[in-house]
Amino acid sequence: MSKPYVVGIDIGGTNTVFGIVDARGTVIASSSIKTQKHANIEDYIDELHVELTKLIDVNDAHDKIAGIGIGAPNANYFTGIISDGVNLPWPTPIPLADLVSEKFGIPVAITNDANAAAIGEMTYGVARGMKDFIMITLGTGVGSGIVVNGQMVYGHDGFAGELGHVIMKRNNGRMCGCGRCGCLETYCSATGVARSAREFLEARPNEPSLLRSLDIDSITSKDVYDAAVAGDKLAKDIFEFTGNILGEALADFITFSSPEAIVLFGGLAKSGDLLMRPLKESMDRNTLSVFKGKVKLLLSELKESDAAVLGASALGWEAKAAADIRK
Amino acid sequence: MSKPYVVGIDIGGTNTVFGIVDARGTVIASSSIKTQKHANIEDYIDELHVELTKLIDVNDAHDKIAGIGIGAPNANYFTGIISDGVNLPWPTPIPLADLVSEKFGIPVAITNDANAAAIGEMTYGVARGMKDFIMITLGTGVGSGIVVNGQMVYGHDGFAGELGHVIMKRNNGRMCGCGRCGCLETYCSATGVARSAREFLEARPNEPSLLRSLDIDSITSKDVYDAAVAGDKLAKDIFEFTGNILGEALADFITFSSPEAIVLFGGLAKSGDLLMRPLKESMDRNTLSVFKGKVKLLLSELKESDAAVLGASALGWEAKAAADIRK
Repeated sequence: MSKPYVVGIDIGGTNTVFGIVDARGTVIASSSIKTQKHANIEDYIDELHVELTKLIDVNDAHDKIAGIGIGAPNANYFTGIISDGVNLPWPTPIPLADLVSEKFGIPVAITNDANAAAIGEMTYGVARGMKDFIMITLGTGVGSGIVVNGQMVYGHDGFAGELGHVIMKRNNGRMCGCGRCGCLETYCSATGVARSAREFLEARPNEPSLLRSLDIDSITSKDVYDAAVAGDKLAKDIFEFTGNILGEALADFITFSSPEAIVLFGGLAKSGDLLMRPLKESMDRNTLSVFKGKVKLLLSELKESDAAVLGASALGWEAKAAADIRK
Repeated sequence: MSKPYVVGIDIGGTNTVFGIVDARGTVIASSSIKTQKHANIEDYIDELHVELTKLIDVNDAHDKIAGIGIGAPNANYFTGIISDGVNLPWPTPIPLADLVSEKFGIPVAITNDANAAAIGEMTYGVARGMKDFIMITLGTGVGSGIVVNGQMVYGHDGFAGELGHVIMKRNNGRMCGCGRCGCLETYCSATGVARSAREFLEARPNEPSLLRSLDIDSITSKDVYDAAVAGDKLAKDIFEFTGNILGEALADFITFSSPEAIVLFGGLAKSGDLLMRPLKESMDRNTLSVFKGKVKLLLSELKESDAAVLGASALGWEAKAAADIRK
């Protein structure tokens, strides 16, 4: 009999969230540990093992786990390695898949968080049944997971889908953490919106704004959202600006893979019409005529509290195949 | 026994070239007819049938053709239809796959010319054995064919891979035939290079150039090439300009699908170091660090006289599968 459960583990900069998930996408049980607690990766995996084993015990799930899926920054599906651990406390490269697999005696597949989100959406979410879609995660940065012909696009090296780093401004673009200028994520992430707020406040010194009562260096995208909801013109213009650039980017992505849908996920994606109206208008205006009106713009339907674990867990169903590729 | 041959048909604006090809990519025989001769698509297919049947007779290939592959502008693999026949003399939509299949009694698959080129390169050319690559055709326009996980990227509607229409200049970009401004193909196609020549000549009125002896409105990319080869500074700068923009575009494409290689095809791709040096420099400079130095920039190895027929013919091997999809 095939095993009825998978485990999903989402390794974030602050928390590592994990859970046991069934084939219908129900999170049977979940828990978390602090990612930063251990300077040593082995100690971290020991704690993960202790805490996850508790969940497995309580839910009588021993020998019922088909695989473990892990979403983590810069995690490579093909190699099982985290190559360059942004925000993670351990020296890289980390052979994460092998370490976790040896500890648990269960096949493990890993990929980056945005790809995990796409797999989650395809398995349990709004992209169920779609063979071609693009997932865009609007968080601290902009991530992406691309599905073509029903398969994740990993590229020849496992690192495909870095759409947060297409260049949107080729002249005087904002400095990006990647060392280049003008990347999409410098504009359309949560931090990008905060940067826009500082730019707008400085560029329009005589315009009143609710945001002026805040310390300019600590304004967040949430502050901009709250001000826009309260009717603040400058804050609303920031969402116009953000939606416009994101729409230009999505129109370009469509020329590449002609997806059935683009699925948005993450804090910014929940800004409602403040973002979605200018975004849709810009996407429609910029889309090549052959694709116009064909591509759905959807919001993730996964509960945010479950989404990270669900996405990673969906990868667990193919953990055996991934482990075979790594051999 | 499986049939040993396929037929490739390349429908261009001026000529329709067709040939019989074996499994090793040898063009056994080929011929051509004038695309524009018949105002009626049925008459055109009748002539194609007569001429192709002659080839089949001479080569004793009756009952040995596994399938017919056709490359044509805006031809859709999924529907078998040419939806919007740029430069073709017949009213659209044209149910081309069915018309040809009924006439010959052989399964037919169609796709656009750039996709056919990519399939040809994957089957017989420099991309043999590659599972992830991008084909860029630098002709009158800029076309593209994208291969991911060993499969053509057709997208949900069959129209994926319009990379000639990503926007490279968002402000004051050149008008494109697609109705938008700043598309890659307005800069990096043969016509784009000719436009650059006119812009450069007008923007630098005091700089001598061999190109000034020509009628400015009829300068071609070949004229610019010849002048550059003769050492003309302005002409060389046009290739710098062209290579720089193309490199920026390729760097963005890499973030999408992380291909093993980008394969260039078409007249402009044969400009040698005039184009390739600035192109490589720009691609390297603009590529995200995780992909840097990993992506090969290759030139098509297919003989230009055979390439169109070979590309289309490669699709013939999967004509039966394509016909099944259309049913």
